Amino acid sequence: MNNYILKIDCADAKGLIYKISDVIFKSDLNIVKNDEFVDSENSKFFFRAIVSGDIENGNLVGKLKEVMPTDANIELTKKRRKKIIIMATKESHCLGDLLLKEYSDDLNAEVVAVVSNYDYLKELVSKFDIPFHHVCHEGLNRLEHEKKVLEVLQDYECDYIVLAKYMRILSSDFVKHFNGKMVNIHHSFLPAFVGANPYKQAFERGVKTIGATAHFVTNDLDEGPIISQDVINVTHEFSWRDMQKAGRNVEKVVLSNALDLVLEDRVFVSANKTVIF
Amino acid sequence: MNNYILKIDCADAKGLIYKISDVIFKSDLNIVKNDEFVDSENSKFFFRAIVSGDIENGNLVGKLKEVMPTDANIELTKKRRKKIIIMATKESHCLGDLLLKEYSDDLNAEVVAVVSNYDYLKELVSKFDIPFHHVCHEGLNRLEHEKKVLEVLQDYECDYIVLAKYMRILSSDFVKHFNGKMVNIHHSFLPAFVGANPYKQAFERGVKTIGATAHFVTNDLDEGPIISQDVINVTHEFSWRDMQKAGRNVEKVVLSNALDLVLEDRVFVSANKTVIF
Amino acid sequence: MNNYILKIDCADAKGLIYKISDVIFKSDLNIVKNDEFVDSENSKFFFRAIVSGDIENGNLVGKLKEVMPTDANIELTKKRRKKIIIMATKESHCLGDLLLKEYSDDLNAEVVAVVSNYDYLKELVSKFDIPFHHVCHEGLNRLEHEKKVLEVLQDYECDYIVLAKYMRILSSDFVKHFNGKMVNIHHSFLPAFVGANPYKQAFERGVKTIGATAHFVTNDLDEGPIISQDVINVTHEFSWRDMQKAGRNVEKVVLSNALDLVLEDRVFVSANKTVIF
Amino acid sequence: MNNYILKIDCADAKGLIYKISDVIFKSDLNIVKNDEFVDSENSKFFFRAIVSGDIENGNLVGKLKEVMPTDANIELTKKRRKKIIIMATKESHCLGDLLLKEYSDDLNAEVVAVVSNYDYLKELVSKFDIPFHHVCHEGLNRLEHEKKVLEVLQDYECDYIVLAKYMRILSSDFVKHFNGKMVNIHHSFLPAFVGANPYKQAFERGVKTIGATAHFVTNDLDEGPIISQDVINVTHEFSWRDMQKAGRNVEKVVLSNALDLVLEDRVFVSANKTVIF
Repeated sequence: MNNYILKIDCADAKGLIYKISDVIFKSDLNIVKNDEFVDSENSKFFFRAIVSGDIENGNLVGKLKEVMPTDANIELTKKRRKKIIIMATKESHCLGDLLLKEYSDDLNAEVVAVVSNYDYLKELVSKFDIPFHHVCHEGLNRLEHEKKVLEVLQDYECDYIVLAKYMRILSSDFVKHFNGKMVNIHHSFLPAFVGANPYKQAFERGVKTIGATAHFVTNDLDEGPIISQDVINVTHEFSWRDMQKAGRNVEKVVLSNALDLVLEDRVFVSANKTVIF
Repeated sequence: MNNYILKIDCADAKGLIYKISDVIFKSDLNIVKNDEFVDSENSKFFFRAIVSGDIENGNLVGKLKEVMPTDANIELTKKRRKKIIIMATKESHCLGDLLLKEYSDDLNAEVVAVVSNYDYLKELVSKFDIPFHHVCHEGLNRLEHEKKVLEVLQDYECDYIVLAKYMRILSSDFVKHFNGKMVNIHHSFLPAFVGANPYKQAFERGVKTIGATAHFVTNDLDEGPIISQDVINVTHEFSWRDMQKAGRNVEKVVLSNALDLVLEDRVFVSANKTVIF
Repeated sequence: MNNYILKIDCADAKGLIYKISDVIFKSDLNIVKNDEFVDSENSKFFFRAIVSGDIENGNLVGKLKEVMPTDANIELTKKRRKKIIIMATKESHCLGDLLLKEYSDDLNAEVVAVVSNYDYLKELVSKFDIPFHHVCHEGLNRLEHEKKVLEVLQDYECDYIVLAKYMRILSSDFVKHFNGKMVNIHHSFLPAFVGANPYKQAFERGVKTIGATAHFVTNDLDEGPIISQDVINVTHEFSWRDMQKAGRNVEKVVLSNALDLVLEDRVFVSANKTVIF
Repeated sequence: MNNYILKIDCADAKGLIYKISDVIFKSDLNIVKNDEFVDSENSKFFFRAIVSGDIENGNLVGKLKEVMPTDANIELTKKRRKKIIIMATKESHCLGDLLLKEYSDDLNAEVVAVVSNYDYLKELVSKFDIPFHHVCHEGLNRLEHEKKVLEVLQDYECDYIVLAKYMRILSSDFVKHFNGKMVNIHHSFLPAFVGANPYKQAFERGVKTIGATAHFVTNDLDEGPIISQDVINVTHEFSWRDMQKAGRNVEKVVLSNALDLVLEDRVFVSANKTVIF
């Protein structure tokens, strides 16, 4: 018996759960697990179910569309290992952690390629027999460089792009192209410490916690819908390099946690927020 | 418009969500939020919904019983401030925290009485104008003492009994009498450190974390279904008294978090585990 | 045998530990515990020791001054319960927690008075038989109001002033008057969410953690040297009022932890940072 | 200028700090950082300093021995990258994390070899060009197998042996041979869940936290001096395999944190506890 993920969101209305479960029941399918949430402030309805049964020959989405509001987003996905492309620059902690997790079958995804604007990470990536694409940005303006990146990306089928410490600002067009499909990780307490070397700023501020935020990328730089956050404690004994090292630990854990959620289709994006079941 | 909490659990079967939502929809009610979970190992179905609408004159539970499996537990509760009785012995940290939270309207419950086998806490309780009952255990055996406690308890209507560091072992009969209605807090890592002065044992073991567990009381001493747990870090600089002090902080937070869940009817007990929505 | 806390900070130089321990040894005293830290970036030396022995008749500080650099701050304090004054406005969670801790002998301080610009908290404070001073700010400008507050404060000896959700901005003169002696608690992620109702802003931003920071008060509003920070996790299910409630829990714990450190003379302030032993 | 770590422990006595710093000062060296702790219960003194200066031609340890109690352990180590051997069985999460950290210069150690009783991990280790030794245990009794392991280990100079999910019980002789030099990681809440598949036991118990403990190996199985512990939260939605996966995350982080402390010579072992500066 196959499992499917059904995700629906739309304006809230009475009887939505009834209508959905009516269609599912009459299609002879079973709901293994379902979560529902109404954002009452914005009157929005979110629903996710794991559905089991023989779905292939029914037209579940079509039947749901008949009864649901016309604005409803209805997504039905067979539970499967997603494909991801990782983009990185020089730092290896997040990238390496994901490669290792995939290698150990601890990542619910296949890393189909790694793209970087430098070649520092080539050696590491090639250890894991994954295609590495060095798309150098030198001598190119942002759009020219992104065009080249896009050419590489288009050779692959991929569900999500993971920015694992990719240190280039992306153009509005690039971001729009992968709307809701691009996950980024950054040190936290932004916008507290904007600009160069935030760890040094945090050190100078004498912070006692260092955090990381994983979020979907939107055109608000480092401000997209937050998927996961965490912090660790630091003390006056930490130099800013120690803070950076501690930060790397929390960054890799937070990114990995966020991907676990995204890859299981547990995350809805709603305006600038996420609903996570 | 009133909000109600609907909780259902039963053996799993196909179409349960459909049947439930069908009844709710046809009763002209709305599901504000619903969570569902199937414990596939034990083939058990758990469902909780916040339902809004005019419920008084329909017979929602009756209608649900008609369509649901005969073993189904169906609970419909109007969202309301629950009544609790706190039992304690000598330590004030958990008791005081709850009294203060109630005083500040941060506890979703009314503390109707405090019962203790000592009178140490009388002064504190009386500050908050709450009845305090000293039921001395001296010269009485366990059953005689519990009989007196029960006499006091029976003068009050109460939804839950909170053991806020009540240091007497309860008889099997007493526990059965309040089955699923009694919440306890204890230092964690039990059964690691069984017996007298567990903090001293933890100190001697050189542990680096101190935890607390809030759980429903069953006849397995300190082994009932876990509602909430947390830990804090300690170092070699902590004496066992420092550990005890740190433990008090985590105990009061964990008990308070567990009560928040229980008082909002978010917790199901299933065998020796909890399902928490 | 009495215990004393010796705190020294000065420009770093060779042999400081030797010089200090030489004086202590020749004074026939014993170092029970000592911590030392050199901020190598700023070439500053920090030293704290718990010293035991008969100190009264020696002139320990005098002897230390003879051998230490002339810029050295040398503080010798008998271990004793400090006196604190709490300032608050309307919210009771931090104030109540401290009153309760003092009542249960879990606070290493005596609360000698509570001052508020409203009278909301009078009832709570009077339960604990502690003087409550309502210094109304209505019809007064900032300096006039602070003058009245100062008049109240001057009637008490006190080691520290604790701003337990005191919601008035303090003038530069007031802050200077209690330089290094005033501890504040605020919701964290400031300056992320500056301005009115930061919890609502955090809610709208969809944050997944809610934090609190305890710090010494300086003229940089909410930007003084950080003593302690912590966060808790929140989800999309939290309304901003839920976030505020969760925030109250973390605020009271962080303030309490920070005070534990301050009251044991474990905190040095250095520029805008703390060194905590 | 070189940095050295000086570690001293002995029975407590008056003037120890003075004597130590006197020797250091007169050797024309400087204390960059020092920590001291007296375990008053057992009257033991612990001291650690980072000392800078020209140490080679002095006989610092010899001079210290002259003034310190005869039972004093005095260790002086030049700050250097330690050498470690990792022993593992089948699971790759801890091993891979350490290999990756070394590769990225985030581990303050060189992994000189990996030893396993299976060959599952050979492929992973060889990616990082590190010698892998498969010492099969089949057909051998414990001592015969350990003899073969020892033969491999003796070909390397190494400071510490890291048991990164090495699933064989070690003989008392093997443990004694590497006394204080062998670090292990295991799921926490032991001895709560002794025996086979502790994650399944934890699942059946319905725990809400999953932890890990890193400790020195002694003959008390999984009971040596604790270096580091941490936990993460789990819910009723976690199957025992999910718990195991979550456990892997916390195991690798806790082991890595413990090694950071050990590799910087920050950890003292005292009876069955650690003192960590």
